[in-house]
Amino acid sequence: MRAVVLERGSLTVQEVPEPVPGPGEVLVEVLAAGICGSDKSCANHADGFNRASQALMGIDLLDLDSPIVFGHEFVARVVSYGPDTQQAIPVGTRVVSMPMLLREQPVLLGFAGAEVPGAYAERMLLSEALLIPVPDHLPTEVTALTEPLAVALRSVNRVDTGADDVPLVLGCGPIGLAVIAVLKMRGVGPIVAVDLSAERRDFAKLMGADVTVDPTVESPYDTWMQAAATDDPARMAAPTAVFGQLPLRPTVGFECTGAPGLLQQLVAGAPAGSRISVAGINLDPDTIEPAHGILKELDIRFSLYYSPQEFAETVAHLASGELDAAALITGRVGLDDVAEAFARLGNHPTDAKVLIDPSLG
Amino acid sequence: MRAVVLERGSLTVQEVPEPVPGPGEVLVEVLAAGICGSDKSCANHADGFNRASQALMGIDLLDLDSPIVFGHEFVARVVSYGPDTQQAIPVGTRVVSMPMLLREQPVLLGFAGAEVPGAYAERMLLSEALLIPVPDHLPTEVTALTEPLAVALRSVNRVDTGADDVPLVLGCGPIGLAVIAVLKMRGVGPIVAVDLSAERRDFAKLMGADVTVDPTVESPYDTWMQAAATDDPARMAAPTAVFGQLPLRPTVGFECTGAPGLLQQLVAGAPAGSRISVAGINLDPDTIEPAHGILKELDIRFSLYYSPQEFAETVAHLASGELDAAALITGRVGLDDVAEAFARLGNHPTDAKVLIDPSLG
Repeated sequence: MRAVVLERGSLTVQEVPEPVPGPGEVLVEVLAAGICGSDKSCANHADGFNRASQALMGIDLLDLDSPIVFGHEFVARVVSYGPDTQQAIPVGTRVVSMPMLLREQPVLLGFAGAEVPGAYAERMLLSEALLIPVPDHLPTEVTALTEPLAVALRSVNRVDTGADDVPLVLGCGPIGLAVIAVLKMRGVGPIVAVDLSAERRDFAKLMGADVTVDPTVESPYDTWMQAAATDDPARMAAPTAVFGQLPLRPTVGFECTGAPGLLQQLVAGAPAGSRISVAGINLDPDTIEPAHGILKELDIRFSLYYSPQEFAETVAHLASGELDAAALITGRVGLDDVAEAFARLGNHPTDAKVLIDPSLG
Repeated sequence: MRAVVLERGSLTVQEVPEPVPGPGEVLVEVLAAGICGSDKSCANHADGFNRASQALMGIDLLDLDSPIVFGHEFVARVVSYGPDTQQAIPVGTRVVSMPMLLREQPVLLGFAGAEVPGAYAERMLLSEALLIPVPDHLPTEVTALTEPLAVALRSVNRVDTGADDVPLVLGCGPIGLAVIAVLKMRGVGPIVAVDLSAERRDFAKLMGADVTVDPTVESPYDTWMQAAATDDPARMAAPTAVFGQLPLRPTVGFECTGAPGLLQQLVAGAPAGSRISVAGINLDPDTIEPAHGILKELDIRFSLYYSPQEFAETVAHLASGELDAAALITGRVGLDDVAEAFARLGNHPTDAKVLIDPSLG
């Protein structure tokens, strides 16, 4: 079969052996796969990932000396079952899955080699236990957004976001936009979204941002503070009342850029008692001022992943129509055009989420 | 009356005017007051506090050009009431209070001038609404520990510490020791405590630490990881299971030193899914590696203060005997000897909490 393989820093379409489902596994045909910024980060900044994964588990997460087939955002169709399977979901059914193979040593799909390829390929392997059938009425392309939306749902859940919060979202790339879509679904707001790019700010409005800020023109933190103002002392965090800060209620901020220095901007700019969600991936050391965090009793909560429940809940929200993120999809490419789409990533603000459709060639 | 006044960088005993209680206020006689490391930080590092308070509220928290009377940890006795008071607590009763005067612009007691002195003085003013009578059987000196223990209670609460957690406490100064006492009261453990000083590690054992680590001899994080090991996949955080990290359960870590670099040590050393409490005050910028936080979905939660409920709860825990921290008290000085005790602070590991008793002269 054909797959896009990262080898020696280059993405090329290669003919690779058809993957063979092991016990409990299923062979699926990829219908659509999202190109994710973290794939590009992996290709370009493997050292940073490996420095962190060495600290975490004593291994290199990425082995760039071996080929990698990316693709952890996908929707697929069941082709055939391997041994020791229940086969409750008929062949031909569209499915999604968390990007993981439940082997004794779990495989992170999209970060391993062609024998367990990610979704930048015609076919891939999934664990039967993780399959979620896609409701018939849900369009294939929208379903391909499940994974990034689950990431966003997790980051919103991680900071206990409530309807009363006034979220600031720093960065309107795919993660920031997905966060905005989830916040909108939850009825949280007003939502303040920040990006240097006018096109990105327009996407933020499409996703549900109530206020967008160009940080070269005005301070996002001033705008945020105005939105978070309250006259009710009972709604202020303790340090706010004590230290005579502006009467602000605690709220939530989302760091969705991964750019160095922005975490400290949020720490310095957040109202007392606020929770800061970090979903943007910054692979370099970064500087914060702990004294700001202490005087304001802030929380910094990092998020990366999602629980199986959060993943399934995301599919359900898409199916019910509560979660509307179709406007994120700005392009489709076949496998042959992935390398070009990859090169554009991050440089073209009119691109949000580009999907791979292997049937396009 | 006599008070210890910080002026032009020096602490001297001065005769100052008797403070006059305003509406809703009460004049009290200081029975015992703790010398706190943050007082010394304020005296020596006002710039750092002010940089943070400027960011927080646009003002300098500390005005070192004007005299300051420190002392925010205290127990006192009611002397006389000002106007507009209920006077439900009889004159002569021992009381504690959060260190705050509830004026239109609240006063942080212990960080203002001699007209609203902190407890490094013979007498001070309190807000009647904040008075908590001290039960007769509770010794005066133990009661003087209420404030630092409330700080510790808050920092334990801030990370949702449960009985199943295996806390690591970095730094066995007064805050770290108070955290250990609160953890012990809550039945959390085993408690792993870390300090460079053998004397401090002995204090940690007195407070209830189960394991103490000299970081020059062994890695606190190895010890912590062994303590946090589990065979039960259901108790592991999601990233642990996914990334094949050592089978560790999420737990809590306490940064109680304020030393630069130690927050990142905790971030790098914590099991996935853990919560990190930052109670040590570091006034300088500090470096963290966000990628570690993200790959492990950590929380960093800063704490400084306490709610009125947490303060009252601390008094109740002391009164019931559940919270036993009397071993923290290692010295008593009169006002005349405060400057010398202040100079020793942090340099004498056999000192934990030194109390001021103004009646000693």
